Order: sequence, then C-alpha cells, then structure tokens
Amino acid sequence: MRLVTYLDGATERVGVVENEGLVDLSSLVPDLLTLIAEAGPPLWGAIREKVAVALQKQEVLPLQSVTLLAPLPHPRKNLICLGKNYVAHVTETARARQRPDVIPDHPVFFSKATTAVNRPGGKIPYNPQVSTKLDWEVELAFIVGKQGKNINRAEAMDYIFGYTILNDFTARDLQEQHRQFYKGKGLDGMAPFGPWIVTADEIPDPHNLRLSLRVNGETMQDACTSAMIFRIPDIIAILSLGMTLEIGDIVATGTPSGVGMGMQPPRFLAPGDLVEAEVEKIGILHNVVELELAT
Amino acid sequence: MRLVTYLDGATERVGVVENEGLVDLSSLVPDLLTLIAEAGPPLWGAIREKVAVALQKQEVLPLQSVTLLAPLPHPRKNLICLGKNYVAHVTETARARQRPDVIPDHPVFFSKATTAVNRPGGKIPYNPQVSTKLDWEVELAFIVGKQGKNINRAEAMDYIFGYTILNDFTARDLQEQHRQFYKGKGLDGMAPFGPWIVTADEIPDPHNLRLSLRVNGETMQDACTSAMIFRIPDIIAILSLGMTLEIGDIVATGTPSGVGMGMQPPRFLAPGDLVEAEVEKIGILHNVVELELAT
Repeated sequence: MRLVTYLDGATERVGVVENEGLVDLSSLVPDLLTLIAEAGPPLWGAIREKVAVALQKQEVLPLQSVTLLAPLPHPRKNLICLGKNYVAHVTETARARQRPDVIPDHPVFFSKATTAVNRPGGKIPYNPQVSTKLDWEVELAFIVGKQGKNINRAEAMDYIFGYTILNDFTARDLQEQHRQFYKGKGLDGMAPFGPWIVTADEIPDPHNLRLSLRVNGETMQDACTSAMIFRIPDIIAILSLGMTLEIGDIVATGTPSGVGMGMQPPRFLAPGDLVEAEVEKIGILHNVVELELAT
Repeated sequence: MRLVTYLDGATERVGVVENEGLVDLSSLVPDLLTLIAEAGPPLWGAIREKVAVALQKQEVLPLQSVTLLAPLPHPRKNLICLGKNYVAHVTETARARQRPDVIPDHPVFFSKATTAVNRPGGKIPYNPQVSTKLDWEVELAFIVGKQGKNINRAEAMDYIFGYTILNDFTARDLQEQHRQFYKGKGLDGMAPFGPWIVTADEIPDPHNLRLSLRVNGETMQDACTSAMIFRIPDIIAILSLGMTLEIGDIVATGTPSGVGMGMQPPRFLAPGDLVEAEVEKIGILHNVVELELAT
C-alpha cells in the first residue's frame, strides 16, 4: 500500500494511492502517524473496505490534482540518517576531501532537523549567502512501526512499517566547516521525503533495490541497496542499543556514489535544477532548486 | 522568574517557583511551551497576579513535595548542542584522543535525541553492554523564545526566552566509534536539563556565569561562561543562517574543561555516582547514575 499525506485546502489528510487515484482515509484515522501506531488487521481491513467502496462510488481523487506533503510532515524528532554507508561513496568523499579513505567500522549516525522536512515537489532553497555547494544524495529510508530498544538483529525487520525515498540535500561547504553534519545537512527544506510510504509487505527485500538520481534528466547516481555497508537489521540493532526507537521515526540508510562533490571537477546545484531521486518499488521524489532572496 | 514543569499525579503541570514554593499556573496556560509562545506583558501580569493571590491564600506547594520534570519534557525537535566551545576543553579532548589540538573556526553543532531528555533528579541509565565510558558535561543552555531565521548578531539576544542547565552526558566509547556524535550523546536519559528555566531578564549577562560540576561532592569542572569560544549572539546568528529556530528550541552552549575523559588517567561514571551540575543564577541539576539491566 502507498500511503500519503496531502492537502485538502489548508487541511492535512491521510490517504492511500491506488493506481493514479487517491482515496481519503481521514474518516478512519486523523493522520499517517496515527495510522502507523494503530496498524493491524482491523485497521487494514477497514482501509481495504474504504478503498473498495471509494472505487465503486468513484470517490477517488486524481493524484495529479492534490498537493502531497511529506508523508510524515511533522516528525516528533529529527530524522535519523547514516553517513558513509556505501563503499564507493566513502571513496569519492575521501578523494574530494583529500583525506584517507576509511570504511567505517561502526555506522555514522547524524540527524536532520525537523525544520528541514520538505514535500515531494517542494522547492529546495538556494541562498548563496548560506551555501554555494548544494549537493544531492538519494537514499532509501525506512519508517519505524513499533517502539523498541536493544532490538535483536533477528527481530529487527519486524520494527519496520514501510519505506520511502529521502533526498539528503547537503551544503558541502557548511558540512566541512562545522565538522559535525547537523548544520550542513539540516538547512530549511533540505530533507524532502516521499512521495509516499510503501508498506513493508510490498518490499520483501530492501537490500535489492535500484536507487538512482537525475539532475535535469542526467543520471548522477545509479546503484543498488545491496551495496550498503551496514544493512538494515544491523542499523536497527546498533542504533537501538541504549536508545529507544519510536513509532514514526524516519531512518535514512545512506547514499551511494555519484554525489556532486565527488565529481572531477565537482558539480553543485543551482537555481532551476530539477532533482529526481528514484528508488525501485517506491517511485520518484522530485524537487526543484529555487533562489531564496536573503533577508 | 523560575518556571518549571512538574507532576501532579500523572498530570504534567506548569508552575513558577517563588523561594522554596511552587505556584501552579495551569489555570493560565496548559504547559510551559505555550507559556513561552504566549509570553508578553498581559501573560506576565496574569502570572504575577496569580502568584500574589496564591501567596496570600497560602496556595503554594512546597518545592520538595513535587516531582520536577525537564522544563520542556517533550521538545518538538532534538536538542541542539555545541561541541568544542571552550579552549581548555578542546585541549583536554585532543590530548585524550591523541589528536591535534584544533580550535574550531566554526561552531560544531550536533543534536541529542528527544528520547534522551531526562528530568532533574532522574536516573542516568548505565548499561555496560552499551557503554563503559559514561562522562559528564555541565553546560549553560538557552531556550528560544521566538521563531527566527538569518538572525542578526545585534538582535540575537531578543530571541532568548530564558536559560537552564543541561548535563550533556556522553558515552565516550560510542562517540569515538561512530564519529558523528548522535549516538554517543543521544542514549536514553542522557540529556537531563533543568531544574527550571530562568527567564532572560534575571540573567542580563550570560557570559559571566560560573559553571561547575561535582561527582559525589568532588569538583570536576569549574569555569566561567566568559571563556566560550563562540558567544551566544554568534551561536544564534550562525545557527539560524538558512535554518529556522523555533519557539522552545533548546540550545546548549558547550562544556568547559574537567570532563572525565580528559583526566590522567581518565575517570568515568559508575552506578551510584551523584552528579551535580551547577550554573550561577540558575541553580543545581542533580542526577544519579543507575545500573540498567540489559534486556
């Protein structure tokens, strides 16, 4: 199932996408976070019935007619991300920074602020007084479906509600200057994700998905999630050691090679650039870079 | 004014501390975050009147009789922290890690997860399967009082609602292994703050406060906020560049020297240790380390 949050006027609603149509679920649950928390056979049954009735009565909105928001537009904590989780990306980064090429022994976790959340199709602010080295990073992200701490690897996949695409936009100059990634990866609008959450049952093997990224139609990243250094059960086990994962937490699993910083010469984004991040079995997340006038 | 969040049975209430008494403000505002958002002459007037009436009618709770929570027990995003903001701490850290002693040119920002929030007097979990190098860090923290982005240095102090004490507990082994600080500083319970928020009017000069930390009565840290590398107006200006600060954001300004890792030989916390973090004009935040059985 593909679950979305969308705007109906100024009201945020939760819906399910069926083919190119959207069925409003807001008579069943107020928002997608509640849906995740209450997910189980009764709610899934009610959703299926709601969809069947909507199709029959033709109460389906054309997907093109609505504004999608990030599936979880108001996360309760910062988004959790991994750095350096694909070998070829570690190598390109090390070369660009003229540093030794060290494959991490432990996952490199950091966070993106909630104010960085952006929607599918949302504008990515470009302000040259803030950064002139805006870069892209396509990532597979998973959504935590139940609370847990000290989760065993063997049970880790049971904690996943579903998957989405996250484009981990990064200001490379700030990332380097501030050393910790919080600032360079946390600017407003730099965490678009979506366009929907695909429930875990539709992706039995998240480690065999092609992920790619195009800038103005030109392919920059093209890899497979099989190349992750730390796989999802490891990520969940290590992350949850001493640290509670909560329902609705968003965890992005790192980007493969092909970022702008790693190119020779480096390439960065400019106003007007269309960036499409694609993950197999999920879809395409597109965003356009837009000049933001300094205040 | 010293503002608190406290438990009345299972109900969280907002209150103000007058001498050693506590006056319930929940007839005026539902919680401290709302109080910050609505702060202004009318609300301050209503609070003063409420306090005067309570004192007159002797409707004051003894402070010792209530359980204080973190003043903002449910932050809407991760806590924002600074690393390496006191020269002597940079030096002790570099020596301990056997790395070059580099004073940062740009503030080192990172975050502590919302699940790390802990209360004054709250137990700090110690689980040797997670970390055996639990360390302390007393810090002055400020609370953002109004939303802003690209804030000028000259206006930055207007964005501060008040101040509190944060003890940035850190698992040094995890901090080192994972490179980015998210994991080593974000374990459950490792961000106690409080015991209250002191409003900014009571601290005209936050860069002239003594801050100290004791473990079982022995002084480990003792310094002055005058030694910060990046002062608060700089922190606000640099942090808010391209990044919206929101009402209720908690920003910790870094720790001085005297952490356990920097001692020769290093000293780390063990179950039973009492840790008291003190900042002049605010008070004392105390916590006890407690063994947490592995699950």
